[in-house]
Amino acid sequence: MSFGTIELVEVGPRDGLQNEPDIISTEVKLDLISRMIGYGARRLEVASFVHPQRVPQMADAEAVIAGLPDRSDCTYIGLVLNKRGVMRALATRENGARGVDQVGCVIVASDTFGQKNQGQTIAEGLAETRDMLRFARAEGMRAQVTISAAFGCPFEGEVKHETVLAIAEELAIENPEEIALADTIGVGTPWEAGELFGKLGETLGGKIPMRAHFHNTRGTGIANAWEAYKAGVRTFDASLGGLGGCPFAPRATGNIATEDLIYMMARSGVDTGIDLAAAIAANKWFADVLGRELPSAVARAA
Amino acid sequence: MSFGTIELVEVGPRDGLQNEPDIISTEVKLDLISRMIGYGARRLEVASFVHPQRVPQMADAEAVIAGLPDRSDCTYIGLVLNKRGVMRALATRENGARGVDQVGCVIVASDTFGQKNQGQTIAEGLAETRDMLRFARAEGMRAQVTISAAFGCPFEGEVKHETVLAIAEELAIENPEEIALADTIGVGTPWEAGELFGKLGETLGGKIPMRAHFHNTRGTGIANAWEAYKAGVRTFDASLGGLGGCPFAPRATGNIATEDLIYMMARSGVDTGIDLAAAIAANKWFADVLGRELPSAVARAA
Repeated sequence: MSFGTIELVEVGPRDGLQNEPDIISTEVKLDLISRMIGYGARRLEVASFVHPQRVPQMADAEAVIAGLPDRSDCTYIGLVLNKRGVMRALATRENGARGVDQVGCVIVASDTFGQKNQGQTIAEGLAETRDMLRFARAEGMRAQVTISAAFGCPFEGEVKHETVLAIAEELAIENPEEIALADTIGVGTPWEAGELFGKLGETLGGKIPMRAHFHNTRGTGIANAWEAYKAGVRTFDASLGGLGGCPFAPRATGNIATEDLIYMMARSGVDTGIDLAAAIAANKWFADVLGRELPSAVARAA
Repeated sequence: MSFGTIELVEVGPRDGLQNEPDIISTEVKLDLISRMIGYGARRLEVASFVHPQRVPQMADAEAVIAGLPDRSDCTYIGLVLNKRGVMRALATRENGARGVDQVGCVIVASDTFGQKNQGQTIAEGLAETRDMLRFARAEGMRAQVTISAAFGCPFEGEVKHETVLAIAEELAIENPEEIALADTIGVGTPWEAGELFGKLGETLGGKIPMRAHFHNTRGTGIANAWEAYKAGVRTFDASLGGLGGCPFAPRATGNIATEDLIYMMARSGVDTGIDLAAAIAANKWFADVLGRELPSAVARAA
């Protein structure tokens, strides 16, 4: 049986690592990325262009990108929070360097969270994000966008579906390559995932692909991914081992684990292009680097 | 919104504890059960009537049962693997004692696993289980049955849906109170859960209720529960904190956690009758007793 194909966006190098308290060396990050490509990841979020004082773990973004394998079959994504970030992403391509292939913009679906996280209300974030999307396009840089806190806000609690969909509708005017919904704090349930992605699919009318970004903070991440798949999502963020935490729940786990997503999808007849055994081997290697076991259930059961 | 109601079967005292290497005292078990009732559990698997040399943790089954709160609103289940077990369950009611309300029988849907675990092929297990169901009924004891390894076998790998459904069909002749499918080793995916419970529902024709028993060994347990719910299952086994391991994957986690199941269902508009905050408090208490954190994602995020 084959029900279809999904694309993995391996976000371990960025979302997975950014909350790690100890700085990982550029060399180890490049080794990690190389192993991720080795298990079949072809689209990777490799760094974020944020101020190094805000996220010290990403201070070597340019050095990581300069060291990436020059592969034409891989798409490297740099996260950008403002126009300065887009300019840094563009600069990685100067003088014939390979650089990043795509920037990922982020807009928060909550006024309070947005103000605390990026100093912007939703309206301000929308204006800036639209501006960034236009700017990136004008400069020949591919760009997509993620609506974060789409399933709930650590400060406001509920985030209305209408709020999320109105943001998506306005972003769609700029024709980004993809619009993602992120359950940044991991509160969503499969029921909501099916509902919200179903509505997003209607809003986008098939013209702009959807991507899903789930955290497993409350154990629902894999269930949410399956419901999102059934609602038409074919691209999923996940991180090796389930790396990545939640600053609002320090003892909680992070992104859905690549291994767990792949296991669930592959055994459901969905092609993923990922070599699960190689991913588990990469997990064991990186667990040794960090000196602790990673959350992935599949890797623990192996 | 309300989509319906589910019934939790709290299996922590039995499936959750049986693999604990250190013996938990009867007093602590009764304290645990009391806290479970405190958070709203009204149906509990309190012990198994197995030989104490096989499962030393269950050696005090009769003592635990003798100490249970005499509540008419609770259903206490004793697990039985043979007729001798049913007789022990019946004996708990002698001399006017409250005892257990229901026995739970188990049949393994794999010849190899059944022979290793209970010394029986599927056919032998079916004959004995039918006999046990008839015997329990004749003696006035309520009885239900679980088909274990229904989603996969640690020795044979795949378990065919036809095998599981044929077992269910034959068990249905004895009209048990309920037929459950158990993913004993936690290999199932939501796709399979929806398929198999959908087919089971058709096989049983609405005459015998279904129950689902999932393990979160590979991170799919909550996703499976949601698909089973959508396929018509309204009764779910879960254990406080996700207690319970997998003898075939020593580092893996166990049953789906009560807290995680309840969180997912409640936030999807399904009534559960469980006080999540009280369950998390019970988790913290029992984690202190065991001296380690329990797997429940929801409790860790709290």
